[in-house]
Amino acid sequence: MNEFKLVKTSGTARAGELITKHGTVTTPVLCPVGTQASIKALTPQDVTNVGMNMILSNTYHLYLRPGIDIIEKMGGLHKFMGWNGAILTDSGGYQVFSLSNLSKINDEGVTFKSHIDGSTHTLTPELAVKYQESLGSDIAMVLDQCVAHDADRAEVWAAMVRTHQWAQRCLRAHKSEAQSLYAIIQGGIYPELRKESASFLTQLPFDGFAIGGLSIGEAKQTTFDITQTVTALLPADKPRYLMGVGAPEDILECVDRGIDIFDCALPTRVARNGALYTQSGRIDILNATYKKQESPINPGCECYTCRNFSAAYLHHLFRSKELLAYRLATIHNLFFMSDLIKSTRQSILDGNFSSFKNAFLEQYHPTNETTRLSQKKKWLASRENIVH
Amino acid sequence: MNEFKLVKTSGTARAGELITKHGTVTTPVLCPVGTQASIKALTPQDVTNVGMNMILSNTYHLYLRPGIDIIEKMGGLHKFMGWNGAILTDSGGYQVFSLSNLSKINDEGVTFKSHIDGSTHTLTPELAVKYQESLGSDIAMVLDQCVAHDADRAEVWAAMVRTHQWAQRCLRAHKSEAQSLYAIIQGGIYPELRKESASFLTQLPFDGFAIGGLSIGEAKQTTFDITQTVTALLPADKPRYLMGVGAPEDILECVDRGIDIFDCALPTRVARNGALYTQSGRIDILNATYKKQESPINPGCECYTCRNFSAAYLHHLFRSKELLAYRLATIHNLFFMSDLIKSTRQSILDGNFSSFKNAFLEQYHPTNETTRLSQKKKWLASRENIVH
Repeated sequence: MNEFKLVKTSGTARAGELITKHGTVTTPVLCPVGTQASIKALTPQDVTNVGMNMILSNTYHLYLRPGIDIIEKMGGLHKFMGWNGAILTDSGGYQVFSLSNLSKINDEGVTFKSHIDGSTHTLTPELAVKYQESLGSDIAMVLDQCVAHDADRAEVWAAMVRTHQWAQRCLRAHKSEAQSLYAIIQGGIYPELRKESASFLTQLPFDGFAIGGLSIGEAKQTTFDITQTVTALLPADKPRYLMGVGAPEDILECVDRGIDIFDCALPTRVARNGALYTQSGRIDILNATYKKQESPINPGCECYTCRNFSAAYLHHLFRSKELLAYRLATIHNLFFMSDLIKSTRQSILDGNFSSFKNAFLEQYHPTNETTRLSQKKKWLASRENIVH
Repeated sequence: MNEFKLVKTSGTARAGELITKHGTVTTPVLCPVGTQASIKALTPQDVTNVGMNMILSNTYHLYLRPGIDIIEKMGGLHKFMGWNGAILTDSGGYQVFSLSNLSKINDEGVTFKSHIDGSTHTLTPELAVKYQESLGSDIAMVLDQCVAHDADRAEVWAAMVRTHQWAQRCLRAHKSEAQSLYAIIQGGIYPELRKESASFLTQLPFDGFAIGGLSIGEAKQTTFDITQTVTALLPADKPRYLMGVGAPEDILECVDRGIDIFDCALPTRVARNGALYTQSGRIDILNATYKKQESPINPGCECYTCRNFSAAYLHHLFRSKELLAYRLATIHNLFFMSDLIKSTRQSILDGNFSSFKNAFLEQYHPTNETTRLSQKKKWLASRENIVH
């Protein structure tokens, strides 16, 4: 079991420390996503160098390939992928819902067909816990039932009730002393269901609480409002994790609402499409503007990419579809996020988070992609053209 | 102008030093290929770390994209790609022949259509020199006329005569003091034409001599025989460069025949297909044998990949088409080649190259791919499935 220390608050924003077997992780923290036991295009050394010390990996993907047994035989996920920092694993609930061909779901668990080869598999709360214990992650998640963002109230309620039953079964099944287990609060966009879910789950001895089922297509203001509704009900001494959120502006809004932990594939995925973060917003490196730009993409940035290469070189690598493009872009975006998170934490320690947030948001202009779903749709539509 | 020092010979094998503005390059040397101003999947730092200190880049590709003017504006190729070691550029002669849609060739030069967008361009000996001077490479190559490996004698002779005329024009056009200019000996598989070409070109004040038009589809023994025929006629005090050769066994055979410099896309290209070098030959990491192998792909190897990752992890990355796969594999193959070259040089310094070569070849079993052409055909056939 890992320990969480709340170090300082600034308004409702929190600075903390998560002490794990694989080092102390300062919070707020953003976990880059290593779906298949690899942060795409980076070595573990690169991930450390950009300043990240906790990553997320996916039980669903690792179960299908290479198989949990293989990773266990190799000494666990840390050793398998050569990563000595902390690892958070999700349970597979969201992937079963969003990626696989879901064939059956009932109180017992979920039966689905693999998105890789169509083979049939079953996942139960007990298996989700067992697999994550075998992987040896520092933080494991309960199995939850996810529904679409536009599901009706009755459907959301039923999934929430089942999620609660499964959370209790996960708690009973969980044996590892070294691993934390977090509950996932569901309830869709319905504040009263969210309150019910938070009340129910916070009665149980979980090590932390996640908010699931957000950032899947609802309006951004809804994401923020629901987050605020839930965090108001969470115990101060336990970490709070908002699943799947990670755009710069959204992180600041949700730190403001009391979130400690984030994960998001966005910074790495958009990097591979040539969308690079700067203080004033995302730029598209494929734009002809950069063809002759001798300065780096984000002058003053101290990442490996900006210290060593011009925007013109990055532009050339993307135009030429050189593999190095994806790595340099990923390094830049993760460094940018890591830097943003560090400055955010410092502002909380200094007691001026609010003015830090306002100053950042005044300068930063996100693109018009307002929801994770619209990004996902665009991504799916263009997946033949990009490098996954 | 760079200086070449012949340090030691062991039989006809040579150990030397090439002193350039970008450091001293010990020979024999293999230049990894950075066609588009990037060694695919690697940063310049990675290239240094595997022990390589001279790379090859392609005037043809850089001329088409991003354009010679852009690179010149960025301060030259070294600065553009962030590489502080030595650079050898080829003139584009071979690419015009093998990649573009060749529309016209006459004594003046060659007109071709871009393989990227079909636009029409002209390359002359004078332009080939000018472009390479603008790139600022340490070693530039003359423009030569290449023909197919099965061209008849008359065609080979005519191309050779034109190559000689063009070589003289390149020499007249070449102004850079900092850059060497090498001639390219042609003559196909005809020993008497090769002798004529070597005799003609060695009368001219070139800084080094390359052997072109080999390893393009002829039998391997022919490659070796022609190499031997030519090197016997070359001056001892000038570097000799065998273009496009780079398989481990071929390098040893051609060092034995007096070659100092090699370039080859093979080690990096096969790496991206999962073919990894070991002392006993190439292995296919996608093979199910490696699914559960806890030891590295080449136990005892001190490359970053073997020091940090199991064969099982590499196997998983390749199966999952993770970008990191291509980088780790490339690092391993280049480290292997760099190590082989270093041991080769040491054996020459120790005066026992011949026994080193025999011991290596006894253990190493190359695959059945006997010629660069057959590899190229396979590669072209499978290009939709691999990462270029």
